[in-house]
Amino acid sequence: MLKINIYIDKNSKEKLYFQIYNCLKKQILSGDIKVGMKLPSIRQVAIKLNINQNTVIQSYNLLEEKGLIKKISGKGCFVQEFCEFKIEEKEIPLIESFKYGQFLKSEKINFSNGTPCSEYFPIKEYQIFFNDIIKEYGGEIFEYQSVQGVDSLRYLLSEEFEKEDIFVKKENLQITSGTQQALDIIIKLFSKETKPTVALSDPTYPNALNIFKGWCNIKTLDIKKDGWDLDEFEEILKEEKIDFIYECINFQNPTGVMWSLEKRKKLLKLSEKYNFYIVEDDSFSDFYYYGEKPKSLKSLDKIGKEKVIYIKTYSKILMPGIGLAVMAIPENLIQRVLLIKYGLDTTTSGINQKILEKFIITNKLSHHLEKLRYEFGKKQKLCLTLLEKMKNLQVMHKPTGGFFIWIKLSDEIDGEKFYLKCKSEGVALLPGTLFYKDKRDVCKIRLSFISPTLEEIKIGLEILEKMLFFCMMENSKKSSY
Amino acid sequence: MLKINIYIDKNSKEKLYFQIYNCLKKQILSGDIKVGMKLPSIRQVAIKLNINQNTVIQSYNLLEEKGLIKKISGKGCFVQEFCEFKIEEKEIPLIESFKYGQFLKSEKINFSNGTPCSEYFPIKEYQIFFNDIIKEYGGEIFEYQSVQGVDSLRYLLSEEFEKEDIFVKKENLQITSGTQQALDIIIKLFSKETKPTVALSDPTYPNALNIFKGWCNIKTLDIKKDGWDLDEFEEILKEEKIDFIYECINFQNPTGVMWSLEKRKKLLKLSEKYNFYIVEDDSFSDFYYYGEKPKSLKSLDKIGKEKVIYIKTYSKILMPGIGLAVMAIPENLIQRVLLIKYGLDTTTSGINQKILEKFIITNKLSHHLEKLRYEFGKKQKLCLTLLEKMKNLQVMHKPTGGFFIWIKLSDEIDGEKFYLKCKSEGVALLPGTLFYKDKRDVCKIRLSFISPTLEEIKIGLEILEKMLFFCMMENSKKSSY
Repeated sequence: MLKINIYIDKNSKEKLYFQIYNCLKKQILSGDIKVGMKLPSIRQVAIKLNINQNTVIQSYNLLEEKGLIKKISGKGCFVQEFCEFKIEEKEIPLIESFKYGQFLKSEKINFSNGTPCSEYFPIKEYQIFFNDIIKEYGGEIFEYQSVQGVDSLRYLLSEEFEKEDIFVKKENLQITSGTQQALDIIIKLFSKETKPTVALSDPTYPNALNIFKGWCNIKTLDIKKDGWDLDEFEEILKEEKIDFIYECINFQNPTGVMWSLEKRKKLLKLSEKYNFYIVEDDSFSDFYYYGEKPKSLKSLDKIGKEKVIYIKTYSKILMPGIGLAVMAIPENLIQRVLLIKYGLDTTTSGINQKILEKFIITNKLSHHLEKLRYEFGKKQKLCLTLLEKMKNLQVMHKPTGGFFIWIKLSDEIDGEKFYLKCKSEGVALLPGTLFYKDKRDVCKIRLSFISPTLEEIKIGLEILEKMLFFCMMENSKKSSY
Repeated sequence: MLKINIYIDKNSKEKLYFQIYNCLKKQILSGDIKVGMKLPSIRQVAIKLNINQNTVIQSYNLLEEKGLIKKISGKGCFVQEFCEFKIEEKEIPLIESFKYGQFLKSEKINFSNGTPCSEYFPIKEYQIFFNDIIKEYGGEIFEYQSVQGVDSLRYLLSEEFEKEDIFVKKENLQITSGTQQALDIIIKLFSKETKPTVALSDPTYPNALNIFKGWCNIKTLDIKKDGWDLDEFEEILKEEKIDFIYECINFQNPTGVMWSLEKRKKLLKLSEKYNFYIVEDDSFSDFYYYGEKPKSLKSLDKIGKEKVIYIKTYSKILMPGIGLAVMAIPENLIQRVLLIKYGLDTTTSGINQKILEKFIITNKLSHHLEKLRYEFGKKQKLCLTLLEKMKNLQVMHKPTGGFFIWIKLSDEIDGEKFYLKCKSEGVALLPGTLFYKDKRDVCKIRLSFISPTLEEIKIGLEILEKMLFFCMMENSKKSSY
């Protein structure tokens, strides 16, 4: 029998049995004590360490409970095979969205961001408001709040919305802990004994796809330069029940498409005729770089016969860490929404709701937005100007707002390979395939222009051009063999 | 035709068409302009206000879009019936949990709280840590964080857990935005084409019931003084597939029951034999008032063959507003959990995770808990002493920790009526029926002792005694008729 070392410190605050347990556990897990080996007998250990046998029994019992050893009566204690458990640190394999979505510090130029980066966050104001609110409300603000959201915030938002032709009472607003929670509520709202059916654009926001997948049947529709082909959609509606559609009407993600007024109106008419709801994700309307703020679909919704469930997030306007969105809910759905929200997390952060309120009341929010629009508008313009001059790619829809430019590469180029090539050169962007339900259309990319500086945009697009050239060369080489 | 007043202010920043729209909308909604009335013609309004006809057309169009008026060609514009839309403020009807759970300020003595009240919140420390972390990390802390949770926090928690015999690598910990999100993840984890089946105690935590209801088939088991009757449970297991069980092993809510060691071990054995998982909601172990902290079921879980999904919340230890819980997840489930969490809200608040880390590292959390235990222990002892002397009720399980005392009233008394009587006297508590799946067992109540002061406990229990007496009197009167 091999010698097994057990060290104990009788002056330690840690209990003796636990010290012994830990000492043996470490040796077993490290492999110093091998599977199948016999441990010294309880009596031996007690004598050697000059402690009570019961203490040793306690530690052996714990080892057995943990599945590390096995007592075989009359024979002694043996180290067990501990099957699946492996102690080496290992990375949890990342899947698609993780793999693509995470911008690494080692990448120098970030064309992949879906939200503004931290240098744009209004931290100072946030901090001031935070401290003010604690002074004003004390601990109360950290208690559970109203399920529907802080009353004064909802009142304020209903007034703000009215300025944009959205007429909704505070009783029909639901504050959520972000857009994703809002979408989770939507799924639960429409789930019955069978899965609900959602129609959405192809390409679309990948997180929406991720959330709906598994809980809904998904119908996809191509997105044209002014919205869906609604005749095509009506054919689908005639054939099967669509419970709701999900769409970003202004500056769609990833294409930047704006639905035409005509199509908006027709979509609403269809929703009445075929009795489905429209989930409008209004993440980008505030980011218009020409003219006036575009109107939401919700603003065309008929009062009393609402068909639009409107979602507006503050993650992009302020920062992701605030975790706030608001939903405007048709009257007949509000009570179920309330119950679902109650089940999800009781309430959204009270202090963040109050902070948002302060941002709005003091006009800091609108000033902050003006600043963002000014900055992002310059970046978009530069990107578009540079892209126009580039070969082997084509801007699909010249956007006038939003965060993204949707680009078609020459047919010969594989978007995913191109993505990896750019990545290796320190440029992060997203391959278009990520935005399709069936991962088709591999020769597109999405370029987010909000994070890099103007200088970085120039350098980044130069690298992009070079990589395009390389990819083309490689292909022509291949075909010449 | 009645005269319709349209006021505009040509110097206002608000667009003219919108002023007209608003002016008419208000009169329509207030009823000053009645349903069926004809609006003045576009030409008339333009001339009267000395403005362009197009402006009037714009406002009428908007009114029509909103469903407030209808154009009948050749005849003019008429005010529409606006069906379901009602402008009077109305309260959204509250249901069960809302009705019972919300403590109103008008109620003087609060025996209903499920979390400590705000005077116990460590606000000062929270605020200091908050400001420190912003200084240290700047805006970055408000960006999306790692889906699984901040790495350093998970590392720290895995070390903390080890002290309590829970051996889990940081790779198997998942931070969530509270217990409810953890339960939502559990549901999604076990959902397949058919609903999963969960077994839980009757009575149990009502929010768990609310969340599981609708998404799971629910089996209930009576909770005895030391846990379930596991022979009874095994009979169920033989008959049908149970996917997971949900239980609070230490100081169960509402009964305060502690599972015996024997039953814990047997439950784990059953989970291996019948291949189900055990969701351990460990909300109350930290609130022990005698001896040592009770061990979790998770601490008995076999390494490498884990069957326990462990959930620990920080809402009760710190405050609800922190919105943080942690799950320890068996190896084979962690990747799906990660994906589900990603779909739910991408990440939990980064700053709150860092604040929790600081609370732990500086030992403020353990000191805070010591204080809470001292305070709550005194309150529990007083409650139990006073209740022992009272007639017409019986403490079901004399608890040694947790927040609650589960009380059986004399059979003649209806718990819900008793609840309403106490409420009218300014004493808030919860009727037992709320904690049962089928709302049976109406002669029980749950008393939470953590919020009232010692003085309030005395007064509150005196009122309770009086109300019990009244209820008994009423019944005896009735039966004597």
